[in-house]
Amino acid sequence: MQYKTIDEANQAVIQHIIESQPFLLDVQPAKDVIPEIRGKVILHSGPSIKWEDMNDPMQGSCVGATLFEGWADNEEDARKMLANGDIEFKSCHSVNAVGPMGGITTENFPVVVVENKTSGKVAYCNLNEGIGAVLRFGAFNEEVINRLKWQKDVLGPALSKALRQIDGGMNVNVLVAKAITMGDEFHQRNIAGSALFLKDIVPYLITAGLPEDELREVTQFLADTDQFFLNIMMATAKSVMDTAATTTEGSIVTVLSRNGNQFGIKVSGLGDQWFTAPVNTPDGLYFTGYSSEDACPDMGDSAITEAYGVGGMAMIAAPGVTRFVGTGGFSDAINTSDEMREICIDNNPNLSIPTWDFQGACLGIDIRKVVETGITPVINTGIAHKVAGKGQIGAGTVRVPLACFEKALEALAEKYGVDVN
Amino acid sequence: MQYKTIDEANQAVIQHIIESQPFLLDVQPAKDVIPEIRGKVILHSGPSIKWEDMNDPMQGSCVGATLFEGWADNEEDARKMLANGDIEFKSCHSVNAVGPMGGITTENFPVVVVENKTSGKVAYCNLNEGIGAVLRFGAFNEEVINRLKWQKDVLGPALSKALRQIDGGMNVNVLVAKAITMGDEFHQRNIAGSALFLKDIVPYLITAGLPEDELREVTQFLADTDQFFLNIMMATAKSVMDTAATTTEGSIVTVLSRNGNQFGIKVSGLGDQWFTAPVNTPDGLYFTGYSSEDACPDMGDSAITEAYGVGGMAMIAAPGVTRFVGTGGFSDAINTSDEMREICIDNNPNLSIPTWDFQGACLGIDIRKVVETGITPVINTGIAHKVAGKGQIGAGTVRVPLACFEKALEALAEKYGVDVN
Repeated sequence: MQYKTIDEANQAVIQHIIESQPFLLDVQPAKDVIPEIRGKVILHSGPSIKWEDMNDPMQGSCVGATLFEGWADNEEDARKMLANGDIEFKSCHSVNAVGPMGGITTENFPVVVVENKTSGKVAYCNLNEGIGAVLRFGAFNEEVINRLKWQKDVLGPALSKALRQIDGGMNVNVLVAKAITMGDEFHQRNIAGSALFLKDIVPYLITAGLPEDELREVTQFLADTDQFFLNIMMATAKSVMDTAATTTEGSIVTVLSRNGNQFGIKVSGLGDQWFTAPVNTPDGLYFTGYSSEDACPDMGDSAITEAYGVGGMAMIAAPGVTRFVGTGGFSDAINTSDEMREICIDNNPNLSIPTWDFQGACLGIDIRKVVETGITPVINTGIAHKVAGKGQIGAGTVRVPLACFEKALEALAEKYGVDVN
Repeated sequence: MQYKTIDEANQAVIQHIIESQPFLLDVQPAKDVIPEIRGKVILHSGPSIKWEDMNDPMQGSCVGATLFEGWADNEEDARKMLANGDIEFKSCHSVNAVGPMGGITTENFPVVVVENKTSGKVAYCNLNEGIGAVLRFGAFNEEVINRLKWQKDVLGPALSKALRQIDGGMNVNVLVAKAITMGDEFHQRNIAGSALFLKDIVPYLITAGLPEDELREVTQFLADTDQFFLNIMMATAKSVMDTAATTTEGSIVTVLSRNGNQFGIKVSGLGDQWFTAPVNTPDGLYFTGYSSEDACPDMGDSAITEAYGVGGMAMIAAPGVTRFVGTGGFSDAINTSDEMREICIDNNPNLSIPTWDFQGACLGIDIRKVVETGITPVINTGIAHKVAGKGQIGAGTVRVPLACFEKALEALAEKYGVDVN
């Protein structure tokens, strides 16, 4: 390889992350920016998966997308099409996209467009739907479909008209650097990022020439949706980590993702290959009336935030979230981030965390350190009910299976020779 | 007294604070809500002060207000009127108002109207002007006067039209409880409170029937003004602490304020009397090119936030601000709040601080504890240049002079008999 050692390669990988300049450029219909999505195609989270292997919420999301697109007009017909192979499934990650929970995205979904200007890498993510009955947790009732149609017809175009007025797009690094000092870890908590995004976009929404009722609806939706920034952050992390992956050497994790069945990771020195193992089920706090019995196994591309170094990796940035995900008090949050630091090679100087005595967020998960220590990354995650349509029932944490890293390390040993440490 | 002990009285005092329900009702011209301000009257911060005893920035602010009101049309005439006694000076606190830095407010300033619904106590504060050349630091050039006129003609009426659509007004407790988990201490850092305020108000601004250019200007101003929430918080703290003072017994601080010359405190058991001592000069970090030589002595009613238990008292809530005010890292912030807790009688359960392991903010500064320990409250403050018009030159901390508490304790001893401990 072009580097003397794996460590040297890893430094090159993380340099891409440190230098990244992600900008939110636009919101566009998926079909206009992702050629591979055109036609009867459904994107899903995690490594590739077949219809019959999808869990109930992900299948429910597929039904919802099929109804939203008008490919079928009732659940029964939709399920028939989905089972028959009339609709093609692709992994979001295979087309420069990411999606939370089921990750289900079809051609008429509006998606955020984030470009890392240092590399030109562009990534996409659908829009956050808010809480309650939402497609990403498998719901597909009329309310859900109507909200998606409103996002397509009103929210997406409004955001596009606003963003296009900002010369060069919206600088995401600025938002993230502010929000990490305001208690966001960007996975389960995005209240600051979402408020700062609204603050920055609203003057442009006002001059976007929208009818007053649409302007009011759009700002009210953004004001009510504390996780709106999550999807922007996911596309941001994807554009950055895809840039990191342009250095095709070393042992740094570039993707963490799960499809509800398999957890998959990618590693800088191992190209586009997934290393997978069965997902775990999250552990955490449940809304009243639910328990771990009801929990759906872990899913979603949102763990790209942890690959980037935030989310559960930056638990200490968000002490307000620790009680929500059931990880105890402030000292537990410190312990979690200190533990995560053991499997990373550096701190990100752009993401200074005041509550961590101004240390930067974790930077560069090294699969060698994971296997050596047995410490696996912590993911902060929403917990879906295992039955489609019942939605979110709690929030918690889940560990990436160690086997993903062990398999990847074997492949790396094969590539570089036996001694990869 | 109606209580068996001072401690029992103090419990009654802090109960008012805990139970308070402050709502932001409106923004109105000062003359429409504060009868005492009508005519040639200038409100200033801190205890009463004469023109000749005011420092240069406060005098500059008075000149600016005189020009803004059109009582004079040049600086020379304005100074003549101010020195001649043509204009009456009153303390903000004497008319249920508060004002940051100079605190200068006249009849045509728009003021926020906050009511504590548990007591009906209403308090007022002028609007934040943003940073740079601003009246509150003594600047009075054309830009400053024009901004004040715009606040009078555009911003104030727009906010009034928006707020009046909210049935019962905007619940400030909700904003504060969220923002304290987002790194605000509400004196030197209000970025979260300001963003959350914008988020809540903007849908109502949109339906307020404003011309598009005004709607755009108002939202842009709110988006750009990270300290906008400070003035709302000051009126909030004033309405709450005035409610606390309705229990006219005990040894709890109800007001902390300074006029640039004297620091004044009020105490629950000592009614409306100021206990004063010469102010200190803040210590902190200076913007490039300035030093402590240039610093103006401490001034402003904004220390009402510390009386309420936030600001410097809640340093640990805002580790992001500790470097800005020159107080070191995260552990220094903890030490400051732990020290402040020693002079308070409880923690406020409504203001849980995640970074303080979810303890509530300091509640109830007891003058007996201050004198006994020698620990005086820490104020987080902006530092003004000692020459009017040069504006803010840094930020730092300052201590309330111990003599204020010693004098008050003597008065309390006289009221209750010798043994007040």
